Amino acid sequence: MTKFTMFGKLTAHPGKREELVSLLLEASRNLDDIEGCELYIINESVDDPDVIWITELWRDAGAHADSLKNEDVLAVIQRAKPLIAGVEPVRLRPVGGKGLGV
Amino acid sequence: MTKFTMFGKLTAHPGKREELVSLLLEASRNLDDIEGCELYIINESVDDPDVIWITELWRDAGAHADSLKNEDVLAVIQRAKPLIAGVEPVRLRPVGGKGLGV
Repeated sequence: MTKFTMFGKLTAHPGKREELVSLLLEASRNLDDIEGCELYIINESVDDPDVIWITELWRDAGAHADSLKNEDVLAVIQRAKPLIAGVEPVRLRPVGGKGLGV
Repeated sequence: MTKFTMFGKLTAHPGKREELVSLLLEASRNLDDIEGCELYIINESVDDPDVIWITELWRDAGAHADSLKNEDVLAVIQRAKPLIAGVEPVRLRPVGGKGLGV
């Protein structure tokens, strides 16, 4: 199993979560062109009105690293930066369970 | 969109993560019988040797709540408890992205 999962906790500046979610949703429509991206789900925290968690599943860690060199991805990151107060990445190795094969 | 996502951060007692992962993998094989469970992925932290993160996606919050009344699920929780030092649940509302439709 060489798949790679990343949870990204993004904390928006107060009142900016909705705008950040819209930007990420727009960006996620291009993910079919990004090789090796199997899941990219945008979630709003139920308990914290400024927090977004992104669930990413990649074919392997290299595919994730390559995506960060993609011009479209870099452009989205630049647009998102002014809306973001903090980022906490969580690097994970998926080991099994239901839905991993998708 | 009424789907419900839960990230569960489980911290195993030192040296017990492997045993806890095995138990969760065994339990996840029964999830096809649990209604409304769309994803249940078990991940090991890359950076913390005692930490597991579970990614859950449910048809709705009610399906998740109902699963916690299932006898098989309760039995797994009882077996897992002695291995677990701490639990941090993160309740989320998935809003879109790639792979949410599975």
